Amino acid sequence: MATPRKVCVIGCGNWGSAAAKLIAENTTRLPEFDDTVRMWVLEEVYQGRKLSEIINTDHENKKYLPGIKLPHNLIGVPDMKECVQESDLFVVVIPHQFVKSTAKKMMECGPLRPGTICISLVKGIVLTESDVILFTDMLEDELKVPCLALSGANVAQNVAMEEFSEATIGYKSKEHALLCQKLFDRPYFKIRCVPDVAGVQVFGAIKNLVAIAAGFCDGLGLGSNTKAAIMRLGLKELYKFCQKFFKDASKDVVFESAGVADLITTCIGGRNVRCAAEFARHGGKKSWTDIENEMLNGQKLQGTSTAKEVYHVLKANNLVEEFPLFVVTYKIAYEGGHPSELIKQFSVYTLEDF
Amino acid sequence: MATPRKVCVIGCGNWGSAAAKLIAENTTRLPEFDDTVRMWVLEEVYQGRKLSEIINTDHENKKYLPGIKLPHNLIGVPDMKECVQESDLFVVVIPHQFVKSTAKKMMECGPLRPGTICISLVKGIVLTESDVILFTDMLEDELKVPCLALSGANVAQNVAMEEFSEATIGYKSKEHALLCQKLFDRPYFKIRCVPDVAGVQVFGAIKNLVAIAAGFCDGLGLGSNTKAAIMRLGLKELYKFCQKFFKDASKDVVFESAGVADLITTCIGGRNVRCAAEFARHGGKKSWTDIENEMLNGQKLQGTSTAKEVYHVLKANNLVEEFPLFVVTYKIAYEGGHPSELIKQFSVYTLEDF
Repeated sequence: MATPRKVCVIGCGNWGSAAAKLIAENTTRLPEFDDTVRMWVLEEVYQGRKLSEIINTDHENKKYLPGIKLPHNLIGVPDMKECVQESDLFVVVIPHQFVKSTAKKMMECGPLRPGTICISLVKGIVLTESDVILFTDMLEDELKVPCLALSGANVAQNVAMEEFSEATIGYKSKEHALLCQKLFDRPYFKIRCVPDVAGVQVFGAIKNLVAIAAGFCDGLGLGSNTKAAIMRLGLKELYKFCQKFFKDASKDVVFESAGVADLITTCIGGRNVRCAAEFARHGGKKSWTDIENEMLNGQKLQGTSTAKEVYHVLKANNLVEEFPLFVVTYKIAYEGGHPSELIKQFSVYTLEDF
Repeated sequence: MATPRKVCVIGCGNWGSAAAKLIAENTTRLPEFDDTVRMWVLEEVYQGRKLSEIINTDHENKKYLPGIKLPHNLIGVPDMKECVQESDLFVVVIPHQFVKSTAKKMMECGPLRPGTICISLVKGIVLTESDVILFTDMLEDELKVPCLALSGANVAQNVAMEEFSEATIGYKSKEHALLCQKLFDRPYFKIRCVPDVAGVQVFGAIKNLVAIAAGFCDGLGLGSNTKAAIMRLGLKELYKFCQKFFKDASKDVVFESAGVADLITTCIGGRNVRCAAEFARHGGKKSWTDIENEMLNGQKLQGTSTAKEVYHVLKANNLVEEFPLFVVTYKIAYEGGHPSELIKQFSVYTLEDF
């Protein structure tokens, strides 16, 4: 039996704390892992006390996951050096804009222990003007260790409350996949694995674009069969996008929680759908900023910016013709296309098309 | 250019009349087809007049598709002999229990013209104690001509009102597929084709079983991520069912209207979901008959009988272990399993499982 893995969660936000909770439930019962789970805390003061002290004394992250008891073997550690030097399995779950800087900070505290692996729970992907960058690739580049990804149809608060949901792990090495599956799998949080690190992340990021199209459908008062047609085409274009940009893309992810399940929940409810419906009800004449201010207290929508970035990547790669739904969604959202254009893209096609 | 095909719709119900309408819209503008479309009418008297006379005088099927104007080139023909002898493309759209007898009746009026083809819009499949029989196979056996299938996320009334939806044609011969695509494709009814006659029919029939499971979810008050997990697993088992029973099963159908789209709409709304939710709210203690009487005016649910038939077919083929969702749905519906058993079947599995 190999030495038990020592797990550290990098990030103590809502999802980080929920993930750390279920991981700490598993490490005490599995021989593959050391009981203690560290959670790196970017120290801050909350209600007059240090956040790490609140976590370690009250066993609750009162700021980011209030009301949920955390296991006693989960400890908040503000010292990155201790986290890095004492751990060999990192669960990275921080906002996307901090991934690179945090990885660099980890390396400054290194070296990482031999055999270290990493799994990213970061939401999103990076869309540059012409390319698609995965956070797993960014982490592998910085940390020089293998990196898996986890995504799926789940919500931090519900996972913390132990409501049933699922997630998908994308992997390259089967051995690492099995280890991470054991680390995350709970009776209320079931994990399945696919050999498609990119697919798991791309679906998780670009589903929000499809949700914008689904919201247009709602706002136009179209029926459930029309909306299902939009979601179906969205699923197909998501898979095609993976294929175009990543050579290992597999259809398997479609059948998983990170694939069709996450797409369904995101297109049925959620802020992207609600705001896009409002946009369509106003015939595209109400600005996204006004909608965000009214409906999201000024928070930003992900689906609209994703639509814009995806469009630019497609254009730079001469792929506009092959993604009619992604493109029409962008054109309605940003170039004055009327929301009713949405279904016109289901134009005549032959047997081989799409 | 070949002689134009002469089309006859066998059946004049709700879906038959809506299909005949869009077909007749197409035949007048396409050189591949003779303008006239016959619709075989099982003659009956409605409001003191013969149904065929109403259709041919008022250009409306007042009994089965009231309020919708039918094209003048669509004629109701009560004489099966005329239908059979004057046509070489049959669209069969009759209730499943009448398929065999109607095909026999057609043959009595034969012979069918050389080169005749047939496309089935019949809903369902036949599940015997140990086997799965497709209506396309039944029609091919009886009529001795090639038979395609059409299914998808669409509702007769909405198609008649020209609300946008899609459908999928399952084919063996590409030439026949292209011809049928032309016959059915309208700006408001888009057709795509897959080389999987079985898949198109199996998804259309067994989706109702998954909708029962989705309804249990609703009745238990579980969240959208749990329901998405059920639908995802349903999609996977539907595909696996096709694979086990039909050697040509293709993953393609999953991405089509007859696949994921029809599953989504069926699991989100509809009678199967509503009745199953009621069943779960009563902890399985209220009988299906009572539920049908109260909620469907005594009409029968399809999903429950499908669940029972599928279970028997799986059992006879030693496949119970491989279809946990289908099986648990049956056990809850018929063997006193508590609805909460539903999520217990997401038990621990390894990387290779499912």
